[in-house]
Amino acid sequence: MKLLQVDTLAEAREKLEKVWKDRRMETEDIPLETAHGRVLAEDIRAGEDIPGFRRSSVDGYAVCAKDTAGATESIPVFLEIVEEVSIGHAAGKRIENGQCAYVPTGGMIPEGADAMVMVEYCELFDENHAALYQSVPHGKFVVEPGEDVKAGSFLLSRGTVLGPAQIGALAAAGVSSVPVFVPWKVGILSTGDELVSVDETPGPGQVRDINTWALRAFAARSGMEVVVTRTLADDEGLLEAAVSDAMKSCDVVFTSGGSSQGKKDMTEEILSRVSGGNVFTHGLALKPGKPTILGYDRETGTLLGGLPGHPVAALTVFKLLFIWLWKRQTGQREDFGIMARMKSNLASAPGKTTCLLVRLSRTEEGFAAEPILGKSGLITTMAEADGYVMIDMNREGLKAGELVEVHRLG
Amino acid sequence: MKLLQVDTLAEAREKLEKVWKDRRMETEDIPLETAHGRVLAEDIRAGEDIPGFRRSSVDGYAVCAKDTAGATESIPVFLEIVEEVSIGHAAGKRIENGQCAYVPTGGMIPEGADAMVMVEYCELFDENHAALYQSVPHGKFVVEPGEDVKAGSFLLSRGTVLGPAQIGALAAAGVSSVPVFVPWKVGILSTGDELVSVDETPGPGQVRDINTWALRAFAARSGMEVVVTRTLADDEGLLEAAVSDAMKSCDVVFTSGGSSQGKKDMTEEILSRVSGGNVFTHGLALKPGKPTILGYDRETGTLLGGLPGHPVAALTVFKLLFIWLWKRQTGQREDFGIMARMKSNLASAPGKTTCLLVRLSRTEEGFAAEPILGKSGLITTMAEADGYVMIDMNREGLKAGELVEVHRLG
Repeated sequence: MKLLQVDTLAEAREKLEKVWKDRRMETEDIPLETAHGRVLAEDIRAGEDIPGFRRSSVDGYAVCAKDTAGATESIPVFLEIVEEVSIGHAAGKRIENGQCAYVPTGGMIPEGADAMVMVEYCELFDENHAALYQSVPHGKFVVEPGEDVKAGSFLLSRGTVLGPAQIGALAAAGVSSVPVFVPWKVGILSTGDELVSVDETPGPGQVRDINTWALRAFAARSGMEVVVTRTLADDEGLLEAAVSDAMKSCDVVFTSGGSSQGKKDMTEEILSRVSGGNVFTHGLALKPGKPTILGYDRETGTLLGGLPGHPVAALTVFKLLFIWLWKRQTGQREDFGIMARMKSNLASAPGKTTCLLVRLSRTEEGFAAEPILGKSGLITTMAEADGYVMIDMNREGLKAGELVEVHRLG
Repeated sequence: MKLLQVDTLAEAREKLEKVWKDRRMETEDIPLETAHGRVLAEDIRAGEDIPGFRRSSVDGYAVCAKDTAGATESIPVFLEIVEEVSIGHAAGKRIENGQCAYVPTGGMIPEGADAMVMVEYCELFDENHAALYQSVPHGKFVVEPGEDVKAGSFLLSRGTVLGPAQIGALAAAGVSSVPVFVPWKVGILSTGDELVSVDETPGPGQVRDINTWALRAFAARSGMEVVVTRTLADDEGLLEAAVSDAMKSCDVVFTSGGSSQGKKDMTEEILSRVSGGNVFTHGLALKPGKPTILGYDRETGTLLGGLPGHPVAALTVFKLLFIWLWKRQTGQREDFGIMARMKSNLASAPGKTTCLLVRLSRTEEGFAAEPILGKSGLITTMAEADGYVMIDMNREGLKAGELVEVHRLG
């Protein structure tokens, strides 16, 4: 029976990693303006100290800390004001004992000074002298050069997805051209005589094409570039031509078709022909997602995926295999999930990894996860899910109260 | 003292909500093609049943369940095959007792039939008869019309951020034109004589402009549209002209400048003048984020924010006030955070809400949160954070082992 040939999720992942070793992950340098959301392809080190000068973190007077010894709220020390430092400009004078300089927040602390007294504890005594009512230790309110980042030190690692703070860190370090991974070019071919477009009203036996839409959004959100999308009738010649054509411009080509055995066989034959016989996975011990076919064409370097027709199954396989591979190849760190307690018992099929959609709710101690049950393929079950829980293939289910990790769909 | 005039985070939020009531959230209808990541502006109901017909979830024979009574692995029942239903087409014949029809996965179940027997339990007996080795109950493997979604029933709610599954659900329901909120148009004006561009090497007293970059990325990621970004010198006239100009095209205008008292006063005066005196928040009991100024100009309907100059403080205030307001006004559900146990004690200042950056690590029972300590304004502390923890203003800190909710920065 064909059932015996299915791969476990781990086996399929291992095979995908192995074939992708033939392929180099391409990188490119892009302007910082467009780098948000992209994945760093190299470790970034700081070219110089940040900040590059001794900076005050308060408004106040730069002093030699020793000069403030003994100053209290009732008994000030008096220091000569030798300069008012402007923000953005070098401090001009060296502070000697008995002297001070006004420095605004973010301004440069003059040489000789080693601490700041906040302006709230100071008074102008006369034009050239300040009365300071606080004693400060060495280093108080002084940000040393390189205290944020030392020249040459590690700033961001390869595989970092560039969010606002990382973009800010790159700007701080003067990285205006950013080395990032080139997104995979993706082709999505949905097949089925039953499919009508979103603008049509389905007749008896017909449904609207969901997978093209959902997979396109999923690929784009994950950082891939969708360059081909087509919806095709169940015609072997048509589909084979479309796959071959997409392989010319894509790194990864997906077909997603109905889950009947006839369609699965057809897809398998086509993927085998276009890859010179290199179909290596003929089904997955994964629920949902069993009718999944994987192949690789060495000549064009294209990864081939025959995804199930059921939308939830197609999205599950896309997430667990292809987004997984993309994240892994680009060195992205594994996402942190949300820990939650199961609200009810749930049986699963041993021998298969189960991907269970759940809804989250708040409890006193954190979160509870409630399984969203529904027949496979109902897109609305997925649309209302907060995430999913993986149930190991060696388990027979989950128990109410059990702590599980809920992963995000996106 | 001015310190007494600061608002709590809750007070500032309340004021923001109050002024925004003058403004209607604008909506627009956009093609489904471009709807990914946008926020639904209306509840969406299904126009028709999904699926619109009785659908089989397996390959097999559609039967009258009663006819299979008594069938076992050794003793089959024999039924007349009256049709082979093609995917995407209406079933042509009504099934009477003693009859069956072949239906592939996703195909239409003929009238009269009320269950499916999987093909694995069937044999072709002769050209016109099948032998069925399994008894099935009424409804087995039958997806009823409307079982995914009933016509008129609730599909997606206002405030839903459209991810892959939601895009799929809209496609399934035939929603090709999607009502979404118009993104806020945002202007970001960074000021400071100390700022140099990302391509320049900072001299003594100078730093590269970080806030323009980080805030632009943050606004874009949150679904706003950044239409103005400028970096300006500390010139009151220049800044006032730039704010006035940005107010013509923006819903929200931010300035972000140094945190010295002089700059704060200047920003406050400018925002007061351009808003006809309507500055309503003069500082926040928030750490970091104290030197925050908020105002609203009724004439142009522009929200005005004077953000701190320190990048971490600016991003914190932007997240906790403006992204908060945008999410709230668009009806977005509050994010679920990651529950984690504090790795160490942490003191905080009572009377101020503290936003603490943390790094997460996995433990046996879930996650641990480690505070990232660093002087305010160091962008690298934020770049390496996995999220933040809010410490209530009535608390004096967090204890090691305490369960906290870690929110995402993005």
